[in-house]
Amino acid sequence: MTSTISINDSQRLGLEPLNIPHRLLLGPGPSNAHPAVLQAMNTTPVGHLDPAFLNLMDEIQSLLRYAWQTENPHTIAVSGTGTAAMEATLANSVEPGDVVLIGVAGYFGNRLVDMAGRYGADVRTMTKPWGQVFNLEEISAAVATHKPAILALVHAETSTGARQPLDGVGQLCRQHGTLLLVDTVTSLGGVPIFLDEWGVDLAYSCSQKGLGCSPGASPFTMSGRAMEKLKKRQSKVANWYLDMTLLGKYWGSDRTYHHTAPINLYYGLREALRLVAEEGLASCWQRHQKNVEYLWEGLEDMGLKMHVEKEYRLPTLTTVCIPEGVNGKSVARQLLIEHNIEIGGGLGELAGKVWRVGLMGFNSRPESVDKLIAALGTMISNN
Amino acid sequence: MTSTISINDSQRLGLEPLNIPHRLLLGPGPSNAHPAVLQAMNTTPVGHLDPAFLNLMDEIQSLLRYAWQTENPHTIAVSGTGTAAMEATLANSVEPGDVVLIGVAGYFGNRLVDMAGRYGADVRTMTKPWGQVFNLEEISAAVATHKPAILALVHAETSTGARQPLDGVGQLCRQHGTLLLVDTVTSLGGVPIFLDEWGVDLAYSCSQKGLGCSPGASPFTMSGRAMEKLKKRQSKVANWYLDMTLLGKYWGSDRTYHHTAPINLYYGLREALRLVAEEGLASCWQRHQKNVEYLWEGLEDMGLKMHVEKEYRLPTLTTVCIPEGVNGKSVARQLLIEHNIEIGGGLGELAGKVWRVGLMGFNSRPESVDKLIAALGTMISNN
Repeated sequence: MTSTISINDSQRLGLEPLNIPHRLLLGPGPSNAHPAVLQAMNTTPVGHLDPAFLNLMDEIQSLLRYAWQTENPHTIAVSGTGTAAMEATLANSVEPGDVVLIGVAGYFGNRLVDMAGRYGADVRTMTKPWGQVFNLEEISAAVATHKPAILALVHAETSTGARQPLDGVGQLCRQHGTLLLVDTVTSLGGVPIFLDEWGVDLAYSCSQKGLGCSPGASPFTMSGRAMEKLKKRQSKVANWYLDMTLLGKYWGSDRTYHHTAPINLYYGLREALRLVAEEGLASCWQRHQKNVEYLWEGLEDMGLKMHVEKEYRLPTLTTVCIPEGVNGKSVARQLLIEHNIEIGGGLGELAGKVWRVGLMGFNSRPESVDKLIAALGTMISNN
Repeated sequence: MTSTISINDSQRLGLEPLNIPHRLLLGPGPSNAHPAVLQAMNTTPVGHLDPAFLNLMDEIQSLLRYAWQTENPHTIAVSGTGTAAMEATLANSVEPGDVVLIGVAGYFGNRLVDMAGRYGADVRTMTKPWGQVFNLEEISAAVATHKPAILALVHAETSTGARQPLDGVGQLCRQHGTLLLVDTVTSLGGVPIFLDEWGVDLAYSCSQKGLGCSPGASPFTMSGRAMEKLKKRQSKVANWYLDMTLLGKYWGSDRTYHHTAPINLYYGLREALRLVAEEGLASCWQRHQKNVEYLWEGLEDMGLKMHVEKEYRLPTLTTVCIPEGVNGKSVARQLLIEHNIEIGGGLGELAGKVWRVGLMGFNSRPESVDKLIAALGTMISNN
């Protein structure tokens, strides 16, 4: 019967092979993937249960633990972008009715609020103007007030460029039986992180920033304490794709099929993590710090100001105040079209007020800064 | 303070660059990606809001509509593997308490049951032995009994190799105000599908089978009727990453940031879909049918039997009965290790009883069949 239906060709575009401009990606992410990562991705896929692939998964686990400085056995890559890994931390830790306290000082704090609510959390927030951070006293007071099951903080707020200090927070959480959940999307690989020393219980990140990979396979980790909470749940995790009780059987010794992994992205992620290990974390972090300071100098020489106080600025992402009288959108557009350089605009409270400039992973190099400063220099006069 | 913490090198593996064996993937998926697809993926990423990328998203939408034979405006690729797209159909259509009727005749029917339950569905099932399909009378009777908000059927059951006929089902659903949800993971690109003619309201697929792409970006579509139900929801979609009210603003004219897309996979998917359009659906479907018949002949000549009745066999995936006295696992292992050919084993009810042999996308070629038959011939004598 179906053979009598004729094929509709109205959406059958006749296209040429892909022709994408080569951009220097200095926005909030993605960054340019390292050429060796793209090369690794250009390998024909094997099956998701192939011994060669299972071995590669083990390597990814070890190298992610190294990058995050954790010994958590349950450290894996989620088969989606950073947002999926973010959702995985909440889906697996929140049970309906749990009090979840979230520090909101930017767009991604707000995203955590929206997500946690969808998993039935009783969400409480502490807020700061975008670009600022919480001090330990403020966090301590809020935890004492709300007695949350989970405290969620954004280590590197991608919308503001601020770095949230985490010293002492884990200890505080342990005193209150609270799990500490941390967003490290814009810090992993580029900013010092010591998950275990800091007492972090759940963390997520992405592949396309500090790690210099392509987006789509995203780091996730949970501590023994977080695993205990998961095991004691009364209800199933309200998300099948991201359910760590199922994913643990695929990444663990059972090797039970759960879903088909994005094989080629895992090739890329393994290569990106291998390069981080080869360079060494200390060198990697120092490189990011050195290059961002070079950027700040260049921007200041041009008369531009940064939005975040120097002490709390991320080495991976800088928010630059758009000067009075300058059309920020049009500058960004001109950079993209005329110079093939991408920078980002502001989100939410900072829309129209800042540019976001990323120097992450492979792109954290003096040449990136030189190109941007030269191009910006042609557009903005030094007042 | 953090500078006083010393870096733990225990997980810092010193690895060589990637060295993965080249396999011929004739299992239930992934299949080998078309070389042109891998080539496209080896392009440096641009930003997810770059005009060049937005244009590519439009192309993907059109070409997906063509491949599925639908005019649904909301036809997109989800940033995860097929399982994520599966979950997206349920997350966006099920409201707590909705009756969802699911046809279960294999592993993926059961997965739908598990997932739908997590979204609060009142799940009802109709079942058949694995490898069989439902006829219209059976479906009609079950719909009349359960009056479901959603009827979910697996068009191509990847665990059994059976093709569920869909003629008349959409009409039936419309009479009962039921939405029709269909799994086309193992059919898109390789098996005739006419979503609009069939009255399908929600469908999902994957990239790494009939489309010949790498896994990780997965087709999703919903009809106007399904969109109406989404708009009338009382509660938010219980999944942020897959919420089509948010994703629609990124794929639609708003272009509002939602998440960072897996850029390079979209390059690959666009190329894979471009190749399908170039070949033409009719030729693509005929090629899959012709090659699978060649496979069946070869297997029968070897004395092997197929598990599914010929009328309902998929052209993309064949379940082959493991003969008495043959160790199926060890044959599959030998094929992989000695011949670099992957085939799959049985799942659930069919574990240990069948091999699963896929001829999908780029791999649906006579050479694939010849290689497999030659290798199998050395292991199984013709009785």
